[in-house]
Amino acid sequence: MTQKLFTPGPLTTDVRVRRAMQSDWGSRDTAFVALTAELRRRLIELANGAARHTAVPLQGSGTFILEAALGTLLDKEHKLLVLINGAYGRRMAEIARRLGLTHTTLEHWEHQPVDVDALAAELEKDSTITHVSLVHVETTTGLVNPLEAVAEAVKTAGRLLLVDAMASFGALPIDLATTKIAAVLASSNKALEGPPGLAFALIDREVLGDAEARNPSLSFDLYAQWRGFEADGQWRFTPPVQIVAGLVEALRLLDEEGGPVARFERYRRRFDRLAKGLERSGYRLYLERAVQSPIIATFVPPPGRPFDFTGLYERLAARDLVIYPGKLTDAVTFRIGCIGALEDRDFDELVNTIAEL
Amino acid sequence: MTQKLFTPGPLTTDVRVRRAMQSDWGSRDTAFVALTAELRRRLIELANGAARHTAVPLQGSGTFILEAALGTLLDKEHKLLVLINGAYGRRMAEIARRLGLTHTTLEHWEHQPVDVDALAAELEKDSTITHVSLVHVETTTGLVNPLEAVAEAVKTAGRLLLVDAMASFGALPIDLATTKIAAVLASSNKALEGPPGLAFALIDREVLGDAEARNPSLSFDLYAQWRGFEADGQWRFTPPVQIVAGLVEALRLLDEEGGPVARFERYRRRFDRLAKGLERSGYRLYLERAVQSPIIATFVPPPGRPFDFTGLYERLAARDLVIYPGKLTDAVTFRIGCIGALEDRDFDELVNTIAEL
Repeated sequence: MTQKLFTPGPLTTDVRVRRAMQSDWGSRDTAFVALTAELRRRLIELANGAARHTAVPLQGSGTFILEAALGTLLDKEHKLLVLINGAYGRRMAEIARRLGLTHTTLEHWEHQPVDVDALAAELEKDSTITHVSLVHVETTTGLVNPLEAVAEAVKTAGRLLLVDAMASFGALPIDLATTKIAAVLASSNKALEGPPGLAFALIDREVLGDAEARNPSLSFDLYAQWRGFEADGQWRFTPPVQIVAGLVEALRLLDEEGGPVARFERYRRRFDRLAKGLERSGYRLYLERAVQSPIIATFVPPPGRPFDFTGLYERLAARDLVIYPGKLTDAVTFRIGCIGALEDRDFDELVNTIAEL
Repeated sequence: MTQKLFTPGPLTTDVRVRRAMQSDWGSRDTAFVALTAELRRRLIELANGAARHTAVPLQGSGTFILEAALGTLLDKEHKLLVLINGAYGRRMAEIARRLGLTHTTLEHWEHQPVDVDALAAELEKDSTITHVSLVHVETTTGLVNPLEAVAEAVKTAGRLLLVDAMASFGALPIDLATTKIAAVLASSNKALEGPPGLAFALIDREVLGDAEARNPSLSFDLYAQWRGFEADGQWRFTPPVQIVAGLVEALRLLDEEGGPVARFERYRRRFDRLAKGLERSGYRLYLERAVQSPIIATFVPPPGRPFDFTGLYERLAARDLVIYPGKLTDAVTFRIGCIGALEDRDFDELVNTIAEL
């Protein structure tokens, strides 16, 4: 396989990440216990969270950690306000609905960032709201929400904030020492550039400490998962050992690159090449630049002629260039991920190929 | 890493399995859709289940698929009878308890197979029981339960059977065309000799068809997971692409080896070398031969002198031979897995090293 994945993840991983996945590990052996400890330490350090937070990895996809966090931190005593401007905000509300949690939503257009004044007004109006959830970067569009301002409003109102940082973690800075967040939720296979199959929560230890035996799900009980790691360094249930090894190697690579600041800069450089290049071919960005992250770009095709996504997709795929369809409810678009172990010249190739087609 | 894992899984995988994990895949791309279809087809064929059953893979560990099956197939209208003779039977009861499902248990000593007469009597006595769960091979000990006789008793009583086949699937035959089972639950990393990170259910399509929107868990809703695969061949949520590729390669290897019959024979041969060898050093098998599977062997140390498991473990580990502690509540033991891509001579090496120590 020599495909280049311009997707929002799973993405093209570095050869060192793939090589790290070539070993077998006894999951209760001391070497793997040390690897798990390195994973948890590196994750918490990335968000400067050692003072108050703990890293709790979980087997499975990103959706699993969202559901695990809601089920562990909330019960019938609580009420969740879900901030929505895309598919992943809607998914959080769907998880809450299925779990039978009391919740309400604050919805926006998909091109609009969360309105902090409206949030503050809602928290003022409804004193029964105990938790607020925010999607940091909406994979639906690439839109970045105003995390610090939302965190400040939630803190001022004395509520707890949960952040879905799936697409942003590792590239957009999150500083848990200065930004009050109860739980940051993310996965291995986006800006961290690891293989898919693992998700994690960075949770305030005081908040998590109150959550013993709350989750009706044994598998998704993050309190028990945490206590398990603290007791003997082992996973409660069989971990995906190769994925853990791949993600640890990806975290070492991120550190060597210069951390999230340097990674953000790499993505921004690619994003600029991509946006400029496709604008020359008549495409335009769906979002305003002010709310556009350099993680994922959503493009609107040139006006005045029918747009055939499947045709474009297939002709690109024939040249081993893989892109994604849009996920918007109100516009015909396609998406290009700027993440992954690709070179700047790969983005030039993509731009030139689309121009040529 | 050149460790040899004599563990109940994660285990030593074949070099072809590890090589298959060297590619990146777009998880919604046609090539990966084809890989997922091959995975589902091979799993269902292994149990001769194409006529009535469908294969529903799920991200995560084996415990996840147990919980997903209970949450998808049972609700407050149902009652589960959990057959227990080890830690994994107890885990099934714990999952049911946490989910708030009505359930009862039939417990045995850890060296005793499930008593089919007692089961039939219990089903006769309690007409509110709707489902029965059985662990095929208890990883706690290596004990094999009488699957066909249990299935017959459950069928005769008109109830539904769920089978935890985590340790047996791929080596002990399960024929869904002749044995009535509502759901077989297993994972990638035991007798299938794949990497950990993926589990699956083979579920009766009629039973699953009645389960729409029953599971309060979005992530673990096997009805929705099934409908997702049937709709467009894609996973609802990000799949662990490398693990899927590794497991498909492991299934191809199983087929080339001659299927479960040949694999059983390979395990039996190793088990015999191991048991004979360790018996010469004064160890004895914990179980009677009649109920002993060749998957995992539990050994009782020689009598009359103190047994230091940690010392034995560490001295073996120093020679890159990894074994597991026992998991029994009533005896000091240790466990050796006979599964994985090891050679007969690796088992001779283990036996000789233990004798020498």
